[in-house]
Amino acid sequence: MDKIRIALIGYGNVGQAFARMLMRKKSYIEETFGRTPVITSICTRSRGGLICPDGIAFEGFEPEQIPDDLFDPTLDAMAVIRAGEYDVMAELTPIDIMTGQPATDHIRTGLLLGKHVITANKGPLAWAYRELRELAASQGVQFCYEATVMDGTPVYNLTREALMGCRITEVSGIFNATTNFILTEMERGVSFADAVAEGRRQGFVEADPSMDIDGWDAAAKLTALMNVLMDVEITPDQIQRTGIGGITRADIEAAAARGKRIKLLCRGRLVDGAPVGTVEPTLVDRESLPAIMDATSSYVTIDTDLMGATTIIEEPFEPEIDHTAYGVLSDLLRILKEVTR
Amino acid sequence: MDKIRIALIGYGNVGQAFARMLMRKKSYIEETFGRTPVITSICTRSRGGLICPDGIAFEGFEPEQIPDDLFDPTLDAMAVIRAGEYDVMAELTPIDIMTGQPATDHIRTGLLLGKHVITANKGPLAWAYRELRELAASQGVQFCYEATVMDGTPVYNLTREALMGCRITEVSGIFNATTNFILTEMERGVSFADAVAEGRRQGFVEADPSMDIDGWDAAAKLTALMNVLMDVEITPDQIQRTGIGGITRADIEAAAARGKRIKLLCRGRLVDGAPVGTVEPTLVDRESLPAIMDATSSYVTIDTDLMGATTIIEEPFEPEIDHTAYGVLSDLLRILKEVTR
Repeated sequence: MDKIRIALIGYGNVGQAFARMLMRKKSYIEETFGRTPVITSICTRSRGGLICPDGIAFEGFEPEQIPDDLFDPTLDAMAVIRAGEYDVMAELTPIDIMTGQPATDHIRTGLLLGKHVITANKGPLAWAYRELRELAASQGVQFCYEATVMDGTPVYNLTREALMGCRITEVSGIFNATTNFILTEMERGVSFADAVAEGRRQGFVEADPSMDIDGWDAAAKLTALMNVLMDVEITPDQIQRTGIGGITRADIEAAAARGKRIKLLCRGRLVDGAPVGTVEPTLVDRESLPAIMDATSSYVTIDTDLMGATTIIEEPFEPEIDHTAYGVLSDLLRILKEVTR
Repeated sequence: MDKIRIALIGYGNVGQAFARMLMRKKSYIEETFGRTPVITSICTRSRGGLICPDGIAFEGFEPEQIPDDLFDPTLDAMAVIRAGEYDVMAELTPIDIMTGQPATDHIRTGLLLGKHVITANKGPLAWAYRELRELAASQGVQFCYEATVMDGTPVYNLTREALMGCRITEVSGIFNATTNFILTEMERGVSFADAVAEGRRQGFVEADPSMDIDGWDAAAKLTALMNVLMDVEITPDQIQRTGIGGITRADIEAAAARGKRIKLLCRGRLVDGAPVGTVEPTLVDRESLPAIMDATSSYVTIDTDLMGATTIIEEPFEPEIDHTAYGVLSDLLRILKEVTR
């Protein structure tokens, strides 16, 4: 059976969870698409790279425990990418919200080599979406990014495949789990600092949570959604952005006394033809959609010309990381569907 | 430019709204798929049929006002279907929840003639889905049904295109707008009878609302969702079904006193491998997803093995009928995407 060869550029929690999920769905992929999925290239942050043109066997070790001696410490990400021993590149390196790098360079190089590219990194969509989209189109390859917003929840595929013919007039929602978790905890009487600590303990608040708390992560996701769904060109620094760092227990209690909650809402629309995006703490009624998004739930509402608003909700799922890994897998399945039809 | 020829079997509000929407999106379809959409066959309930192999011009009259003398009163639905002057048949006749007829016969005949078929009628999915799916597959044609549940909200396309590789383990939600509207009105102090009358005035409660009130409509939608998404064979009469006819103002007030609301919830799952579906009035917390579904809002939650639960919400949209028409249009676009690739 023909293979589909996959490169994992970045091999942290998502990459490892994806490798495990791919093994679990190997038979499904073989039966559905007539291709055997194999991981042929891996690049890690600290251990170097691994190129195995026939596919890593994962025999005698788990995806989380690849022996060190299989890696070549002199192989960095660009070396693994340029070696080209793969059909599909999955870009899974950490995000730099302020630049979209090095992920954008990785993706551009993969596309220039004629490879299909999947990314779980919203940076490239926030900073260089149109260039990458056009490069992929001119190269005749797929560029997929379902896991960049709301993990594996199919926001982009919903719109592309299921809202065909509609013009998207607005996107809005709650996109950042960390701030939503902190606000939920604070409503329970927990201090801001303790809420951050608890989020860290549960593994979804970063060591430095300032990108979340200051609204940059939400702004990058809003930018990615607007660029892709509304066909505009906007960058995270152009979003009108207020974080939750200034929210106090007193604010939350005052809101509760009025039957309200405070949520970090995002909204992107066109005003006189120009894209306008806002991220800001907002008072919402307790019996409303944003209000019932507790802890790490999130949602996006997509307004259209032909059929009004459709909302899709991501509910908390354990382990959270599998949700993102599924987003990467769903992109791979979409690519397989295209290349094997 | 090549044409895509469409037959409308049933020409009530949805058929007319679809014809109008098709005219509005004609250029989009031509630019995207290189085909000119034309309506070549129409069958009405009381005025007979119309077959115009080159396409109805809609010049000098609106879709809602086709002159009577264009119809041949001797042409019934089966005669129009068998004449075969179309590439895509849209089955838009009224539903008979207890049998799925005559829609199922219409669809079967169209598929046997090698035509693509769209239906907005959940009856055939509730009673004969597997047969029709297999017939379409053996004929090499498309069988699409996005508008059968939650109007144009892309429940099936979401699952097919965007949750690929996932096994659906449960479907649940609020599927019936009429009962949800009545319950919402009753919470506002309106009597059951007055709520029904107001719903009729607004145009979405049937002359005989018993199919809604007794839960049959919700049961048929649940059956359709289970048959399609969970690959089971279940019929509406096998659903454990309780309607809202027995709900009194006192029940609703008692619920409110406990901070609850009463909602007609649907749930379908596998128990020891066998499909089990329930439709029943349920007490829900005021700050929960089903509780905030006011009036004609509805939602479906899809539980999966790979990524937990995804929920999609349909919000009220005026005019409601355009929402259903969009579901039919989205199926047409899907067919065009397949046949023109």
